[in-house]
Amino acid sequence: MLIREATAADWPEIWPFLRRIVAAGETYTWPRDVDEATARRLWLPGPPARAVVAVDDAGTMLGTAKLAPNQLGPGDHVANASFMVSPAAGGRGVGRALGAHVLDLARAEGYRAMQFNAVVASNERAVALWRSLDFAVVGRIPEGFRHPSRGYVDLLVMHRRL
Amino acid sequence: MLIREATAADWPEIWPFLRRIVAAGETYTWPRDVDEATARRLWLPGPPARAVVAVDDAGTMLGTAKLAPNQLGPGDHVANASFMVSPAAGGRGVGRALGAHVLDLARAEGYRAMQFNAVVASNERAVALWRSLDFAVVGRIPEGFRHPSRGYVDLLVMHRRL
Repeated sequence: MLIREATAADWPEIWPFLRRIVAAGETYTWPRDVDEATARRLWLPGPPARAVVAVDDAGTMLGTAKLAPNQLGPGDHVANASFMVSPAAGGRGVGRALGAHVLDLARAEGYRAMQFNAVVASNERAVALWRSLDFAVVGRIPEGFRHPSRGYVDLLVMHRRL
Repeated sequence: MLIREATAADWPEIWPFLRRIVAAGETYTWPRDVDEATARRLWLPGPPARAVVAVDDAGTMLGTAKLAPNQLGPGDHVANASFMVSPAAGGRGVGRALGAHVLDLARAEGYRAMQFNAVVASNERAVALWRSLDFAVVGRIPEGFRHPSRGYVDLLVMHRRL
């Protein structure tokens, strides 16, 4: 697995699985019917945001991650990151590899901490992954997410220092 | 005091004190040197966001508030709100009046809760005001804010049901 900077040429390979993940409505606070132009602008907004992709030895897209300041101005020393792993590449440690890579990247960019604002509490694999990468739950928004089958579930704010 | 929908014509009266509040760098996670076009886009982005202004009997601008979904898609039932009170109008209950108004407005728009993502912990008047309006601290970002005189201070996530 290679993790490298995303380029504009990667988007056509990102969009099909990103669209599928967002449409499922189980993990992201994005409009489930997001159009491609909006999705691209959200995922690849340009500096100061960064995006990377994970590809296998044959160059097949496995997943992608985005790194950006979580707040602006006096809050821009805390990073935010988002992750999308192709369902076809599940169970291969892509999320963990992207997480570790983005933590290193955030450190290199000078961020002091990383924060996730909206981890869906029912997304147990994600919560367990971030805990294993030393994130702690520092906040909980009661019923902040409408899950398509579980109804209202909490959103977690997760954080770690870098 | 009258609180009414903001119009494009209100912006020239909002910008001077909004700029001053943001430049002080003590309460907002905005770039301290924000330019006018960016500030206007952030404060008056248009639907689904709403903005209101508080004016006195002579029509003088006292403060303004913005209401918008805190997240999109499956998170858009939770509102976010932001408040700017003209320093010239401090101590007159403008923040409280705007807060109560925006809570009513959010209820009328069908939101189920309201959330603030980044209340600066050292902004004790704001924290006390939101507590008095039944907000609870549901999260705390350690050292999430660079205060110009106090150094790194925590950011609070505050929340209440509607």
